[in-house]
Amino acid sequence: MESHGRFNIIKSDGNARLGQLSTQRGIINTPAFMPVGTNATVKAMSPDEMKDLGAEILLSNTYHLYLRPGHEIIREVGGLHKFMKWDGPILTDSGGFQVFSLSRLRKIKDDGVEFRSHIDGSLHFLSPELVMEIQGALGSDIAMMFDECTPYPATREYALNSLKLTTEWGKRCLKAKNENQALFGIVQGGVYKDLRKQSAEELIDLDFDGYALGGLSVGEPKELMYEMINYSTPLLPQDKPHYLMGIGDLMDVLEAVAAGIDMFDCVMPTRNARNGTLFTSQGRISIKREEFKKDPGPLDPACGCYTCRNYSKSFLRHMFMSREILSMRLNSLHNLHFFLDFFRKMRDAISRGGFEQFRKEWTPILQNNFHAG
Amino acid sequence: MESHGRFNIIKSDGNARLGQLSTQRGIINTPAFMPVGTNATVKAMSPDEMKDLGAEILLSNTYHLYLRPGHEIIREVGGLHKFMKWDGPILTDSGGFQVFSLSRLRKIKDDGVEFRSHIDGSLHFLSPELVMEIQGALGSDIAMMFDECTPYPATREYALNSLKLTTEWGKRCLKAKNENQALFGIVQGGVYKDLRKQSAEELIDLDFDGYALGGLSVGEPKELMYEMINYSTPLLPQDKPHYLMGIGDLMDVLEAVAAGIDMFDCVMPTRNARNGTLFTSQGRISIKREEFKKDPGPLDPACGCYTCRNYSKSFLRHMFMSREILSMRLNSLHNLHFFLDFFRKMRDAISRGGFEQFRKEWTPILQNNFHAG
Repeated sequence: MESHGRFNIIKSDGNARLGQLSTQRGIINTPAFMPVGTNATVKAMSPDEMKDLGAEILLSNTYHLYLRPGHEIIREVGGLHKFMKWDGPILTDSGGFQVFSLSRLRKIKDDGVEFRSHIDGSLHFLSPELVMEIQGALGSDIAMMFDECTPYPATREYALNSLKLTTEWGKRCLKAKNENQALFGIVQGGVYKDLRKQSAEELIDLDFDGYALGGLSVGEPKELMYEMINYSTPLLPQDKPHYLMGIGDLMDVLEAVAAGIDMFDCVMPTRNARNGTLFTSQGRISIKREEFKKDPGPLDPACGCYTCRNYSKSFLRHMFMSREILSMRLNSLHNLHFFLDFFRKMRDAISRGGFEQFRKEWTPILQNNFHAG
Repeated sequence: MESHGRFNIIKSDGNARLGQLSTQRGIINTPAFMPVGTNATVKAMSPDEMKDLGAEILLSNTYHLYLRPGHEIIREVGGLHKFMKWDGPILTDSGGFQVFSLSRLRKIKDDGVEFRSHIDGSLHFLSPELVMEIQGALGSDIAMMFDECTPYPATREYALNSLKLTTEWGKRCLKAKNENQALFGIVQGGVYKDLRKQSAEELIDLDFDGYALGGLSVGEPKELMYEMINYSTPLLPQDKPHYLMGIGDLMDVLEAVAAGIDMFDCVMPTRNARNGTLFTSQGRISIKREEFKKDPGPLDPACGCYTCRNYSKSFLRHMFMSREILSMRLNSLHNLHFFLDFFRKMRDAISRGGFEQFRKEWTPILQNNFHAG
């Protein structure tokens, strides 16, 4: 790996790290939140808005784009960046998790996974080589290796086979690595510490550009997830970026950053926005609440986002109750601003050596939930 | 009426007129297209985007805002402009048409209309006085009188009673007229020329700030609608604005502008956008069409809108097929641009004395329909 994919740690604060990940399309300040653009768009948002919000990288889904519109089409029209009009960095996941969570009739074989599309039931086969070819066609800046996501619960034997398969697929992905594209490995091993260790060691031997923890937040108790994060993260090379896949609950983020995680992605800000659940500096609220009917004040007086600068809770409630698209737009914009701003503040805290203080301040706020109507 | 509501005709070209309608919140160049913001938002659009598109006035719906969130709430939070964050002119319709087309169990009485809400079935009663009070609470720049929309078909007797009731309600609306708000009369009379004449004369005697043709495009054959427009428009005071309510098919617009109509509103650009039907300089197309799958070109190379400057047909098709909100945003933006631009070009043509030439050039384009998948 050349300068593309280079990772610099600027400052450590306990195990928390302030870093910069360089890509050919720009620098990503870490800890970084990656908004999710499943189908080549962050739901309800335009790329310009994402740029204005300060997003430095987007995540997009190999599984979804392979099925629709098809990676060959995206290749033909000039790659994913041009297609979706986002000139910043893009990370594509490998489809391993979606095959596990979305598709039907998944059959795991040594050379890949057979599954049926969640869209039309059509039969498909993803192999490590095809997954790398798809990600090459998309032209993302960071690709993820194809992994077999271990479910929860799983026997030790299942988890062991799953991690072995993942290591084999990791080798094959590295062989098929695309030029100008960083490639991250994915540590599996379920909730078995020795298997997490084995998986990490095997992948580190293969030398990836970064390392992700996979197979977490798949149904296991939170304490067990935290235990795995705290155990596994220190096993990863300290000079490479650490990515906790699919996790974005900010309480989990605080725990993971404290353990040394650098990158996160989650649909929570946009999905919650569409359901009317909004994040504020006082805690989470539901915009549906009756008391907001006549409330002329902004959602969060402490927030500087477009939604809070321009609209009343009364209007936001009305938009939500009327099922207007503008509701999803304004809510998504606000929640994404909240997440991206939270990460900015967290980076600032680490840079000042104040991460633990930051965590202490935010924990009660994040636990506040005014959700009930 | 003072300077607010003043109407100046700058140029005539046949019966087509180029005009300027002055309001306290800005000048509206006519012929004008008024995008529809039923629930206090033009669907899928932000007010900033509407301003960027060059919209000079929006229409909003008395009936909808009365039912949800309620006009008292909008009054309390500072009026409709502040509520929806649009500082340009707003025209509110009177609810007469929605009571006719949307509500259930409509009972027409001398003093108003009893009906059931299309949202929750609750019982309501709208009178001319209440309709003026609602529009006063909303604080729109142009209010419409409460009318009884004559259905099609209707007997001569029904249409006569309906126009008489409308005249009576017109008187009561004028008595309840709000300060700083222009008030337009609505000509009824069904498809009976003598009744259209009678309605126009009775309303002209009452002296409104502008005159609308109502009760058209309610099921009658197009030829009959055109006959009514061509017959009725010249009956209206030439120094007042003429508004053809709820009509926006651009072929109809050409016919109506030729007859002397100045103002239009229609949900067509936004509703069609959400259904994937897009207007181009070559005719209408459906973005669903298979042939667009790999098409890297813009929707309309002749179009300068944000959608056409940034996205391929391939991407627009993918967004539509994936039911992404961005699809509705980009399509709505394009169609609204097309309509507003069409009106700009039409005004330009009138100013050059070239309206008939404009009409000749656009007629075959507007009739072109590449809609079939």
